[in-house]
Amino acid sequence: MEIKEIKIGDRASMARTISESDIYLYAGITGDLNPAHINEEEAKDGIFKGRVAHGMLSAGLISAVIGTQLPGPGSIYLEQDLKFLKPVRIGDTIRAEVVVIEIIKGKIVKLSTNCFNQNGEKVIEGIATILAPKKKGE
Amino acid sequence: MEIKEIKIGDRASMARTISESDIYLYAGITGDLNPAHINEEEAKDGIFKGRVAHGMLSAGLISAVIGTQLPGPGSIYLEQDLKFLKPVRIGDTIRAEVVVIEIIKGKIVKLSTNCFNQNGEKVIEGIATILAPKKKGE
Amino acid sequence: MEIKEIKIGDRASMARTISESDIYLYAGITGDLNPAHINEEEAKDGIFKGRVAHGMLSAGLISAVIGTQLPGPGSIYLEQDLKFLKPVRIGDTIRAEVVVIEIIKGKIVKLSTNCFNQNGEKVIEGIATILAPKKKGE
Amino acid sequence: MEIKEIKIGDRASMARTISESDIYLYAGITGDLNPAHINEEEAKDGIFKGRVAHGMLSAGLISAVIGTQLPGPGSIYLEQDLKFLKPVRIGDTIRAEVVVIEIIKGKIVKLSTNCFNQNGEKVIEGIATILAPKKKGE
Repeated sequence: MEIKEIKIGDRASMARTISESDIYLYAGITGDLNPAHINEEEAKDGIFKGRVAHGMLSAGLISAVIGTQLPGPGSIYLEQDLKFLKPVRIGDTIRAEVVVIEIIKGKIVKLSTNCFNQNGEKVIEGIATILAPKKKGE
Repeated sequence: MEIKEIKIGDRASMARTISESDIYLYAGITGDLNPAHINEEEAKDGIFKGRVAHGMLSAGLISAVIGTQLPGPGSIYLEQDLKFLKPVRIGDTIRAEVVVIEIIKGKIVKLSTNCFNQNGEKVIEGIATILAPKKKGE
Repeated sequence: MEIKEIKIGDRASMARTISESDIYLYAGITGDLNPAHINEEEAKDGIFKGRVAHGMLSAGLISAVIGTQLPGPGSIYLEQDLKFLKPVRIGDTIRAEVVVIEIIKGKIVKLSTNCFNQNGEKVIEGIATILAPKKKGE
Repeated sequence: MEIKEIKIGDRASMARTISESDIYLYAGITGDLNPAHINEEEAKDGIFKGRVAHGMLSAGLISAVIGTQLPGPGSIYLEQDLKFLKPVRIGDTIRAEVVVIEIIKGKIVKLSTNCFNQNGEKVIEGIATILAPKKKGE
């Protein structure tokens, strides 16, 4: 996909069921061993009454849509702003959706980036700024 | 750690060497199979001349410092803004550092959140907004 | 184990319970993010009414028996033909069984290779062709 | 993608650099702990002079192309025949390519399925038989 083909309103999405193993692997590779994510006994007494996924793990689905679909391979991440609205639990199916909201000088793409759970509730909202891949021949 | 103990200027950090397996596992759990991360042949011809880590993977180290050290367990992530300044390669050692810059009504903590590589170059900068853990007895 | 010891009718097997994390890791290392495997919401509406394991993941248990037991370490995989007969779900216990059916020139071993679930139903059937390990001293 | 849109000659591919962690994770989830894959000291003295990837791991890239691209999500794997032609080593970049070679009664799709390394050498060749996803409205 080349930058010329991208226009305001273009959208793409992907979804996956968040597994316990996703959370544990994410904890391992980032070092985020917060008991809210990996200690059910302690998490039961917390505000969410059980283990929840790392907010930044769900946010990674946004990166996946950007890097594989829109704008796609060759994209360079410049900025990502995130608001975490609701917890994501083991077994929730999260859909990350990106929508092109602005194109600056034909190169910089701004996208609305949101994640929804299986009940249609928005769990993350945000804005990404991407340097779009070059057109072939440039 | 309780909210009363937190004051402006408090800081905490952690560092880890980013391995190929970190990148591959992160690709698997998010679905971000962008060839920039998992295809050396294609990445060699890209802007960074080789595979790089997902920006959101390095950003996960920030979440780790927040969730385990400052404010620590019990923290609830409200917002995270990120700017990706430089690529992170396999074998780079990334240090995430957070510094308290504002405390709102004794409950909401704003932190400056930055990641540096082994050469002291800033690779990510950002701001996090956290609902700090309750004091015991509240 | 040396080739001389192998005779027609020899058999070996191993079994494992297929976990959600097996499926998610397999999706990550192969890139097979088909929603049938990692998206419960979408898989519920599919032909199998829920997530199933990748057929090629269960088939990997056959490779495990061949590479560790019969003919064992030093085996070189030449061919594997597979028929996928039934779905494998999270929590199913799959037993892969291999039986020697032909020995060609004392070097090439053909095996019947089948996988069964905990109810004794055949889920995969196939034939493998292996270059057996050399005898010591050859 | 629906079956009507598929025609003989259609092709799709994906590539990834095979990492040491891919091999170790595959060994763990299948139980294929053959020293040829996970014991460098023993593998050094073997026919390939070092650790190689499991043949069935590289073959999984074929499944990934089928399950995500052609015929894509909703495909049901019926058969896969494989010939392993050359070893795959840590760091090799493997491209799996599938080409539609036959369509039976508008439902069953036969594909030529091959994997190539970064030097263009064919490492796996085979044939897959797939029950293609139903058209919407059927």
